[in-house]
Amino acid sequence: MTRIDRVFKAMEKQGLSQMLVTDPVSVFYMTGIQVEPGERFFALLLKENGEHVLFLNHLFNVPEEAPFGKVWYSDTDPVMEYVKEQIDDSRVLGVDKDLKARFLLPLMEGKTTENFVNASLAVDLTRGIKDADEQAKMRAASAINDQAMERLYGLVRKGTTEREIADRLLEIYLELGAEGFSFPPIVSFGANAADPHHMPDDTVLTPGDVVLFDVGCVKDGYCSDMTRTVYYKKATEQNREIYELVRRANEAAIAKIKPGVPLCELDRTARNIIAEAGYGENFNHRLGHFIGLSEHEFGDVSLANEQTAEPGMIFSIEPGIYLAGETGVRIEDLVLVTPDGVEVLNHYTKELTIIAGK
Amino acid sequence: MTRIDRVFKAMEKQGLSQMLVTDPVSVFYMTGIQVEPGERFFALLLKENGEHVLFLNHLFNVPEEAPFGKVWYSDTDPVMEYVKEQIDDSRVLGVDKDLKARFLLPLMEGKTTENFVNASLAVDLTRGIKDADEQAKMRAASAINDQAMERLYGLVRKGTTEREIADRLLEIYLELGAEGFSFPPIVSFGANAADPHHMPDDTVLTPGDVVLFDVGCVKDGYCSDMTRTVYYKKATEQNREIYELVRRANEAAIAKIKPGVPLCELDRTARNIIAEAGYGENFNHRLGHFIGLSEHEFGDVSLANEQTAEPGMIFSIEPGIYLAGETGVRIEDLVLVTPDGVEVLNHYTKELTIIAGK
Repeated sequence: MTRIDRVFKAMEKQGLSQMLVTDPVSVFYMTGIQVEPGERFFALLLKENGEHVLFLNHLFNVPEEAPFGKVWYSDTDPVMEYVKEQIDDSRVLGVDKDLKARFLLPLMEGKTTENFVNASLAVDLTRGIKDADEQAKMRAASAINDQAMERLYGLVRKGTTEREIADRLLEIYLELGAEGFSFPPIVSFGANAADPHHMPDDTVLTPGDVVLFDVGCVKDGYCSDMTRTVYYKKATEQNREIYELVRRANEAAIAKIKPGVPLCELDRTARNIIAEAGYGENFNHRLGHFIGLSEHEFGDVSLANEQTAEPGMIFSIEPGIYLAGETGVRIEDLVLVTPDGVEVLNHYTKELTIIAGK
Repeated sequence: MTRIDRVFKAMEKQGLSQMLVTDPVSVFYMTGIQVEPGERFFALLLKENGEHVLFLNHLFNVPEEAPFGKVWYSDTDPVMEYVKEQIDDSRVLGVDKDLKARFLLPLMEGKTTENFVNASLAVDLTRGIKDADEQAKMRAASAINDQAMERLYGLVRKGTTEREIADRLLEIYLELGAEGFSFPPIVSFGANAADPHHMPDDTVLTPGDVVLFDVGCVKDGYCSDMTRTVYYKKATEQNREIYELVRRANEAAIAKIKPGVPLCELDRTARNIIAEAGYGENFNHRLGHFIGLSEHEFGDVSLANEQTAEPGMIFSIEPGIYLAGETGVRIEDLVLVTPDGVEVLNHYTKELTIIAGK
């Protein structure tokens, strides 16, 4: 079944016979056509008769042979009128969640609000299940990330700064065959690791520092994302305690993954281990998020998500413990749900590591 | 008059008594409150009685003392219901152009489409006129850009690559006191300069190459943007011809700027000079764009824009000539419309420059 067919099936479950998709990543996912529309209108209209239509500005660069109906427009054309002409007025139109008011309001003009519905789930849930081609690309992106992590460990040395290490990573990824970052890398020394979103700065490495790397690359359009936490020169008893807790939380959640398990159950498993040791309040984010063509895709692994794991889902498992002003640990792998369990896409060691450095 | 008062006055001209603003930059512009909402709802509701309301997720970090009504919500709360409670149902609601369907559709539920209107112009046109504080910040950002340009010229030397030069620029900006890039820098050698959006690659500098820098930084939240084109070791007769044409186009357009002049007239002035010399088709973009808190703001300097120049407007003047496979020239300054003319914010030389290099 093609990706469009899968999306259409999901639409039909919502009772929909037509849908306007404007998220450029989702359109790429369904058509292979990549456009960065900026402020301009770019959409795929999915139609019941299978004669799907792309709306394209003449400035977009799209292969002529793309097997879709194409409605071209210029900046001065009333493109939303062209969209109206293609819609079946007697039926509800699904739109995606990010469709902007400047396009949606003209489309709704003169109609009733009941004719429009946010149908993003049809696309988002479909994108959440990766097909074989996508799985292979996600494996490749994470394999590069494993290799990059090894090189990052080699940069942990006397007197270096977070920024110096972070500034080297793009080159490492490019050498390893990636296209670039999937998100700005996080490199945190010491107490900076207590902030899950710390940005690399001029903090200088000091013996006894924790060193946290949360990094990812893009390979063939697909994203990797991985976190490892190591220690420079030495690790205190407390360091070891919270490290092993987080590692246990990561591994216990992963061990539970198989089709049919509610995603909230994975979060709960990890969270209970950390909470029982008294650090519940220090794990202040969800366990994981979906990932693929985008670094954060629809779907999360949190207490609020009762969706069950299905083969083809790829998401992160990233428990952490953060002690403000002191230290932090996070260990993150990407995992693929398989027909009978789980495949972990990251293979770099999670053993507590103390880097002696140079 | 405060910025909010100015926006409100513009709303009243559109016959509006209430407006929901969701563009985080516009909310920052009016309130000084900076939030990166990601997928979450963040908005300022402007109300006729002056009791404006911010809608805030508990995860946002907002100063308690901010002098606005605040409606806090959690991820599990029906925030759009809270918005509905604050809206006057008997009046039309203005929304901004980027409001997303996942927020707009719930807001419209059970109402008629006539009650909603895209009122972005009220904010966008107001933001287009910079006040004294903004003008000072824009001057400072461009002053740094002038200094950075000088340092970039110093990096033009034998064997260097576009990427090597581009990779140095962030550090230069930070040393000069900027916060970072306003957009990814463009560094183009030789034929690469024929693509106005060329991204720095491993192209090696060769004697006779044109070298085009299109770069900008952020200082105190405001953006700079400037282009200079120089030659390495030598310039051919054709190089000199098109360089001087572009310089004349840049200077002639700038010379015309004063309050009341239609912006299309500026584009036409530059375009005619280039077209009369036979290169009309090689200047394939608009003359300029507005800039401020964002690198591209609403408003452009193009044949299609009959809006007239007003004191406080800041935009770019950036004519170019692009010869595919051969070479390219662009010269760009930011300009501020003053009560009796124009102030050019960039001061770095536009004389034809040949860099001997090392």
